[in-house]
Amino acid sequence: MKKLLLLVMAAMVSLSSFAQPTPAPAVLRHVVLFSFKAASTPEEVQQVAMTFAGLYGKVPQVKAFEWGINNSPEKLNQGFTHCFVLSFSSEKDLADYQLHPAHLEFQKVLKPHMDKVFVVDYWVK
Amino acid sequence: MKKLLLLVMAAMVSLSSFAQPTPAPAVLRHVVLFSFKAASTPEEVQQVAMTFAGLYGKVPQVKAFEWGINNSPEKLNQGFTHCFVLSFSSEKDLADYQLHPAHLEFQKVLKPHMDKVFVVDYWVK
Repeated sequence: MKKLLLLVMAAMVSLSSFAQPTPAPAVLRHVVLFSFKAASTPEEVQQVAMTFAGLYGKVPQVKAFEWGINNSPEKLNQGFTHCFVLSFSSEKDLADYQLHPAHLEFQKVLKPHMDKVFVVDYWVK
Repeated sequence: MKKLLLLVMAAMVSLSSFAQPTPAPAVLRHVVLFSFKAASTPEEVQQVAMTFAGLYGKVPQVKAFEWGINNSPEKLNQGFTHCFVLSFSSEKDLADYQLHPAHLEFQKVLKPHMDKVFVVDYWVK
């Protein structure tokens, strides 16, 4: 009976934490778009994307990572085809990421294939 | 006692659903960037942003909405200052959103102030 009561109390604490969630921490998004050189093969472009995605886990400042390939029918993408969104907790973390050896290595993989780059950062509202 | 047992069972079901999460559903991101006319005041620009953000809740196809103002030190934003990211469950939902009366109303609020627009859509990898 004591065990049951403890379980019920634990369930109630758990439920109350859902009812009153703590405010989400501030999130800084780093949105990076690339277009690639016509001479680069799909495999080379995929290798660049995989190397970029591989930074998640290697660079501890990167709190979340997602990416995808543009499929907008609006044709307002100015030739940019690949979109990467990295999430950080602070501007210092983003600055530290820029200088992290794994990010510098990625830039070497990117450089021969990149045509154009577009970057915006914003604090999520 | 029966009530207690039911509560415990409910707690166990709830906990097991956390232990074995179902795969996240596919997410289509719609990334929209604007630059605004020099003649538009900060208040007018803020009104545009608030009207855009107000679509979340009015247009049921919009599953998530976030936005922010560019603060990237890299200066690779080509003059675009405001970034909006809308999430959808399907390309049909995104197409339906484009034709929703609330979205068409928003476009009327936007039009006098918009300088440039940039759009990419991608399925989250």
